[in-house]
Amino acid sequence: MTETQGLHIAVVGATGAVGQQMISTLEKRNLPIKKVTFLSSARSAGTKLSFKGEEVIVQEAKPESFEGIDIALFSAGGSVSKELAPEAVKRGAIVVDNTSAFRMDENVPLVVPEVNEEDLKKHNGIIANPNCSTIQMVVALEPIRQAYGLSKVLVSTYQAVSGAGAAAIAEMKDQARDLLDNKEIEPKILPVGGDKKHYQIAFNVIPQIDKFQDNGFTFEEMKMINETKKIMHMPELAVAATCVRLPVETGHSESVYIEVDQSGVTVDQIKDLLSSAPGVVLEDNPSEQIYPMPANAVGKNDVFVGRIRKDLDEDKGFHLWVVSDNLLKGAAWNSVQIAESLLKLGLVTVK
Amino acid sequence: MTETQGLHIAVVGATGAVGQQMISTLEKRNLPIKKVTFLSSARSAGTKLSFKGEEVIVQEAKPESFEGIDIALFSAGGSVSKELAPEAVKRGAIVVDNTSAFRMDENVPLVVPEVNEEDLKKHNGIIANPNCSTIQMVVALEPIRQAYGLSKVLVSTYQAVSGAGAAAIAEMKDQARDLLDNKEIEPKILPVGGDKKHYQIAFNVIPQIDKFQDNGFTFEEMKMINETKKIMHMPELAVAATCVRLPVETGHSESVYIEVDQSGVTVDQIKDLLSSAPGVVLEDNPSEQIYPMPANAVGKNDVFVGRIRKDLDEDKGFHLWVVSDNLLKGAAWNSVQIAESLLKLGLVTVK
Repeated sequence: MTETQGLHIAVVGATGAVGQQMISTLEKRNLPIKKVTFLSSARSAGTKLSFKGEEVIVQEAKPESFEGIDIALFSAGGSVSKELAPEAVKRGAIVVDNTSAFRMDENVPLVVPEVNEEDLKKHNGIIANPNCSTIQMVVALEPIRQAYGLSKVLVSTYQAVSGAGAAAIAEMKDQARDLLDNKEIEPKILPVGGDKKHYQIAFNVIPQIDKFQDNGFTFEEMKMINETKKIMHMPELAVAATCVRLPVETGHSESVYIEVDQSGVTVDQIKDLLSSAPGVVLEDNPSEQIYPMPANAVGKNDVFVGRIRKDLDEDKGFHLWVVSDNLLKGAAWNSVQIAESLLKLGLVTVK
Repeated sequence: MTETQGLHIAVVGATGAVGQQMISTLEKRNLPIKKVTFLSSARSAGTKLSFKGEEVIVQEAKPESFEGIDIALFSAGGSVSKELAPEAVKRGAIVVDNTSAFRMDENVPLVVPEVNEEDLKKHNGIIANPNCSTIQMVVALEPIRQAYGLSKVLVSTYQAVSGAGAAAIAEMKDQARDLLDNKEIEPKILPVGGDKKHYQIAFNVIPQIDKFQDNGFTFEEMKMINETKKIMHMPELAVAATCVRLPVETGHSESVYIEVDQSGVTVDQIKDLLSSAPGVVLEDNPSEQIYPMPANAVGKNDVFVGRIRKDLDEDKGFHLWVVSDNLLKGAAWNSVQIAESLLKLGLVTVK
């Protein structure tokens, strides 16, 4: 499509909130692409999208769709990935999967390039893209871990509705307008489309993302806990999470408390580290009211870190505020970045 | 006004967001009231309010306004309290002050009746009402502290705009409507009316409440830290806070991590404790998606607690989610409750 030599890239779930961001990220970056194939459910097949100025008609995703594909970026829900990712691999594609279907599979690398790019070398066809809230946190913590060690992570999240898809964004906006007009609302999607009850999200806070597990934590919280340990190769790391949905369209925020291994580390040392860390932008100047906010992070690939404070009681304890665009670094950009890393490491060949 | 024998109660800041809630709380409760006097700045003087069906004209607050007052509930900003609370005391009134003016003064009790009602006995005319986000947290933690001890508290807040007053509520709603209509917005109040910069609050998250201190914590965060220690009589308690403003009208939420002193405490034991604790309503049934949310807490005096989980790594660690109406238990109701406690303890006499 754009070059005679290059990769043939498929986007599965091309019409979804993340799929759309995958397409625009592919347009902006410099991967050598000779062809794109946009796939979706039967319902959305036929939709006309564009890529670098040319029209691309979305096709229904089937096993045969993956013939000739070099890299397939999946973001169409766990059941689609479970069914079609192995079919894509069988046909020679490398799958970068944005669902939770394979993340904890020990044969599947779970990769954030700034943290564990080398894990890509162990792939068996499928590479998992971590949960959005996990990605931004580990990007911020990895430079600190490398310099000073890390023993404990306690995170409370402030997550945007776009993490629950385009329909959740529409629900929030419709509710906001109705509530401002003093109209009744009827929640139908959030907190979890497939769960029993649905609650107001506009002008409200819902302390549930994904379904509850038997231990009282939600699946989203367990994803943050387990994925962080896997990505950082630290099964012994103490991690806990409380995941909360807010009336923000895009941009997840996180209040993170950590304990490092070394004594005597200063806030200035951590600021110095993060100011030159890959993928991180330090926004931390209290006297000028400079700190990360979702409204400023939307549309950017970086992870923004600020409000760095030493705990007042624990010498090894620090507090951080971490914000990123959950559709980009939390999903689409991290997936495309994995594709770029595959090329850089020679794990995919341009034909 | 309503009884021939009873207290003469003044509300200072009667036209403000908290003042309005003080008045409606006084109407609902059973304090013996013979007269109310509503006071405000010169600007709002002359406003007509009603109390139990009778019209009351708001008067400008002056030193002489407090002649004959038994209890004066102040919520008109710290500078008004600093100027007029001593004048009220000089004239024989007991002041319940909802600002931060006197909270850390060692001669002023800082009281949440469920926690330290007895401290009222040491008052010297002024009693401080704690910060809204502190009150709801200590109500939830005190029963746990009494039973199992408490060594550490780490809290991340999700605070509503009404904590910044009626103008902040209007700013959030106007911004929400403008953003839904794709119009430009011009933030003027939040995060802090008197600070240099102002940011979008609708569909955004601002990790600043009150001004920054030299240690990188905001004054709101330091209030939570210092007031919690004072109310609980635990100067040695490890407390840290990250305070965050959200696009919610009323109802503060808090993600709280605590460590107790005893080993082997179970979630069921904590649930049992809280289900019969004063001022607390336990809302904790994950399988039925029952947990506290601000939209459900508005207009209620209780502190709602749910999402209680044992930490997966620390046997003494627990996670809680605490929600309350910041204008009621966080301000107006706690102030009126202090007045009720003064009467109950014989510290004020009905004439």
